[in-house]
Amino acid sequence: MMQWYVVASFLTVLTSSQGILTTLSQSNGGYKYDYATVPFLAEVFKLIVSSLMLWRECQASPPPKITTDWRSVRLYPIPSVIYLIHNNVQFATLTYVDTSTYQIMGNLKIVTTGILFRLFLRRKLSNLQWMAIVLLAIGTTTSQVKGCGETSCESLFSSPIQGYMLGVLSACLSALAGVYTEFLMKKNNDSLYWQNIQLYTFGAIFNMAKLATDDFRSGFENGPWWRRLFDGYSVTTWLVVLNLGSTGLLVSWLMKYADNIVKVYSTSMAMLLTMLVSVYIFHFKPTLQLFLGIVICMMSLHMYFAPPTVLVDLPLTAKASPENLDEVSANRRTAS
Amino acid sequence: MMQWYVVASFLTVLTSSQGILTTLSQSNGGYKYDYATVPFLAEVFKLIVSSLMLWRECQASPPPKITTDWRSVRLYPIPSVIYLIHNNVQFATLTYVDTSTYQIMGNLKIVTTGILFRLFLRRKLSNLQWMAIVLLAIGTTTSQVKGCGETSCESLFSSPIQGYMLGVLSACLSALAGVYTEFLMKKNNDSLYWQNIQLYTFGAIFNMAKLATDDFRSGFENGPWWRRLFDGYSVTTWLVVLNLGSTGLLVSWLMKYADNIVKVYSTSMAMLLTMLVSVYIFHFKPTLQLFLGIVICMMSLHMYFAPPTVLVDLPLTAKASPENLDEVSANRRTAS
Repeated sequence: MMQWYVVASFLTVLTSSQGILTTLSQSNGGYKYDYATVPFLAEVFKLIVSSLMLWRECQASPPPKITTDWRSVRLYPIPSVIYLIHNNVQFATLTYVDTSTYQIMGNLKIVTTGILFRLFLRRKLSNLQWMAIVLLAIGTTTSQVKGCGETSCESLFSSPIQGYMLGVLSACLSALAGVYTEFLMKKNNDSLYWQNIQLYTFGAIFNMAKLATDDFRSGFENGPWWRRLFDGYSVTTWLVVLNLGSTGLLVSWLMKYADNIVKVYSTSMAMLLTMLVSVYIFHFKPTLQLFLGIVICMMSLHMYFAPPTVLVDLPLTAKASPENLDEVSANRRTAS
Repeated sequence: MMQWYVVASFLTVLTSSQGILTTLSQSNGGYKYDYATVPFLAEVFKLIVSSLMLWRECQASPPPKITTDWRSVRLYPIPSVIYLIHNNVQFATLTYVDTSTYQIMGNLKIVTTGILFRLFLRRKLSNLQWMAIVLLAIGTTTSQVKGCGETSCESLFSSPIQGYMLGVLSACLSALAGVYTEFLMKKNNDSLYWQNIQLYTFGAIFNMAKLATDDFRSGFENGPWWRRLFDGYSVTTWLVVLNLGSTGLLVSWLMKYADNIVKVYSTSMAMLLTMLVSVYIFHFKPTLQLFLGIVICMMSLHMYFAPPTVLVDLPLTAKASPENLDEVSANRRTAS
């Protein structure tokens, strides 16, 4: 069994390259391909990989545990339903707030994940771990604070109240989807790959439904989606698909063998890594707030995951020589 | 004996009103009075108060402990000497960097105080307390990040290297003065007021020397400093003097009965309080970074001062009913 932090590190790197690859797959600031086909193909990729892995597991002994009871299977479309509602709420939010306010509000999902993790999964966190979660959200927000000289930033805190309420709802839905998936993956000791197959089958169906709906809305002016599935695909686009699919597989693994908080740390660190890499690749100007945000998130990581004794114990005196003892008693005297 | 946190809270309020009173004492953006006379009169005020307190202590029994040995007295001008050097370094720094970079670099003294506190006073801090100190510096820096639309901010990180080196030196000198004063106040159990008298006598002398030097530099065009000592003084100016003097007395108390880290927290919180009050009094625009900075500093405060068990212990289950036990074992099963 792999260690969770190795998987989490991979997730950070892949999530980060997702943003960079997506930017690189654009030409002249737009997509030559239909971006809605990417998540569908990623679901198909995940489905293929999971099927192969399950088949391999079935060759070995003992065979993997597979629950095919309808009462279990019917729970697997629920994450897709939550994501569908989430996407619509996201869309509605953006009619009220600008993209930079929207991006800032996105950090709320770190805190809502912590809250739902506590409420629904009944997982207990120490005072310090709660602070670490809030700090992680603050760190990512700090890194996104617009520097001076940048335009379109006056609107922060000046959008209609509906925008903020929808932003909070969006953060809750996103957290709910994560927490529900964790519940699903951990509720029995079924094979991870069998659970994945159920999850991704419904995911693929929902994505197909979305593509079909888009076709209906546009009156089939570009033909049905399956006819133009790979239109405009470049090597980079395929890399985006493979990368998104791999990211999803790693998230599933973390949901079963680690938890939502680990996932939230991975993706938050990925956001900072993307910004840092963008400084080099796209020649973004590094800001003081990016540096501050990175330090805050690193400390949050240490606070959440380091063993409590490492955090609170005072360093021991190297040797108890007579001089040192004198010193200790002197300190005690002056401090009283 | 008063509790240190009561004194620290008073220091926060007084340090914060210091900034606000100083701004209110200006007329048309300038001072009608010679600002250099304020610290001198504050030293005199502290000297009078300390003398009265020492006299009262002498009436009581047992009489206060007073060391008049030259080997002890000669240590008391040293903080004034350090401050003198510090002021000159500050002046030199400002010839290389702009005021906003200078202000940001000022937060370094929080970290240098922690380091010198460890090195010179040999005080041990836990891993978490070190993180809290760094977070405090990050929190105050975050609150000062210039918002978008504000001018003169492009120059951050673009000053000559000498400017940054002098900024670091300035932070070290400021920390050294604090740490040395703490050493002085705690090195024996002399009366606090007797120690104050020595400290403030040298302080008053050094301030007089500064006023005289300024007179020499300007060729006595406004006459000697003692002739124009109260020129242009308003009620607000006197409040500035009394406030600065009281701040100094509280700092002395904290150096003897608490420590430098407590003082650093008090003055950092004061900075945030000033910014918050300025939003109301001077109608400053509240920024997202001010809000983030306040939350970071509050968490840092809790991390540094809360008892370790409060921080790292997991909350206990309210009652050990059969359902709860089921739940616990279910959690354990799914988590493994």
